[in-house]
Amino acid sequence: MRLGVLVSGSGSNLQAIVDRVQAGHLPGVSIALVLANAPGAYGLVRATKAGVATACVDHREFSSRQAFDAELVRRLQDAGVDTVALAGFMRILTPVFLDAFPGRVLNIHPAILPAFPGVHAQGQQAEYGVRLAGCTVHFVDEHMDHGPIIIQAAVPATPQDTAQSLGERILALEHRIYPQALAWLASGRITVRGRQVEVAGADYAGGGRYWTVPTLEPPFDADWAAAS
Amino acid sequence: MRLGVLVSGSGSNLQAIVDRVQAGHLPGVSIALVLANAPGAYGLVRATKAGVATACVDHREFSSRQAFDAELVRRLQDAGVDTVALAGFMRILTPVFLDAFPGRVLNIHPAILPAFPGVHAQGQQAEYGVRLAGCTVHFVDEHMDHGPIIIQAAVPATPQDTAQSLGERILALEHRIYPQALAWLASGRITVRGRQVEVAGADYAGGGRYWTVPTLEPPFDADWAAAS
Repeated sequence: MRLGVLVSGSGSNLQAIVDRVQAGHLPGVSIALVLANAPGAYGLVRATKAGVATACVDHREFSSRQAFDAELVRRLQDAGVDTVALAGFMRILTPVFLDAFPGRVLNIHPAILPAFPGVHAQGQQAEYGVRLAGCTVHFVDEHMDHGPIIIQAAVPATPQDTAQSLGERILALEHRIYPQALAWLASGRITVRGRQVEVAGADYAGGGRYWTVPTLEPPFDADWAAAS
Repeated sequence: MRLGVLVSGSGSNLQAIVDRVQAGHLPGVSIALVLANAPGAYGLVRATKAGVATACVDHREFSSRQAFDAELVRRLQDAGVDTVALAGFMRILTPVFLDAFPGRVLNIHPAILPAFPGVHAQGQQAEYGVRLAGCTVHFVDEHMDHGPIIIQAAVPATPQDTAQSLGERILALEHRIYPQALAWLASGRITVRGRQVEVAGADYAGGGRYWTVPTLEPPFDADWAAAS
């Protein structure tokens, strides 16, 4: 699986994937290209430090979403990418992009979708006073934070939580479930029928140390200190 | 705490509360009245079997929501009710009702609110393909399934789940978290500030056998076979 990772900002989920690849936790997966839509995206620095090829395609230089997407596709295909992971990528993708990688574009979102879509999910969860916050890895479709769900995780939220404190708790789970979902995809265990995603052989009974469905499998359920 | 329970249908959450009261799990709580808005509500049968007073106020006989609510209030106050639990009650309450029991009206909903409000939450969760379904006990405000959240529970959802299979899994948790929330309210442990509900001394760290926040306390976390 030749992965392209799209970032707009810090790229901490990119880092989580890089760390898992370097640790040998994602056999068969290589990161072929990290692509940003903004020159200042720190994800580009992370990629360079990890020895991963980078490119930047500034969306402001394109007259339409379709033209921008076509250029993204060209760069990714030139790098031999067959699977795309969005990691804090802040642009909605059009069919021009999605049709180039059918069923191979994933996103992570810091809420238990369909609750709290959009860019302020952590703070909105804290303000709403949810007691269960969380995160979701899903396939991407044309609607924001909407496609078929691969895995969801819940984390506790307290009455004292802020966007930052809750965001950090969620992020720790994001860094586990995103590599886990990519491992399932890379090993051919995922089947999608309509909105239902089935992971062959996965545990849907809700066991394990973390509140995820399906249950995290080794090594993604184990103690783990990321490289950075 | 003199509880009034409002039902429209089967009233299985009413039964869960009755069973806990009868088992001595809700010290200081008595059920003063079960009130239905439809004569055929099976909750009335459950109440009668349990020796609890019942009344039926048919909403179709009132010209406005306010007039209907005023009659509900009159019946409940006549029975000495100070706290109201909605248990599958299908009418939106107006300020006429809510102002009569300020901060003392609770509801249970079969989803992790604010996701999937409304009357078809179980089937909608199954169709959406969520991997985390669940339920919520919250204070009631003028908006449907919207007020400050006391406790939420998550349950696993599989790609094969239906409205019925998922609904049953959720219901098992509803029957635990609703009596737990009432126990907290009855013992004076709940403080509400805006949308944040604090349960004094509760565990917000996400421990325990069930995926709830706060953690269920004994006896609500223990094996338990309801009477019916």
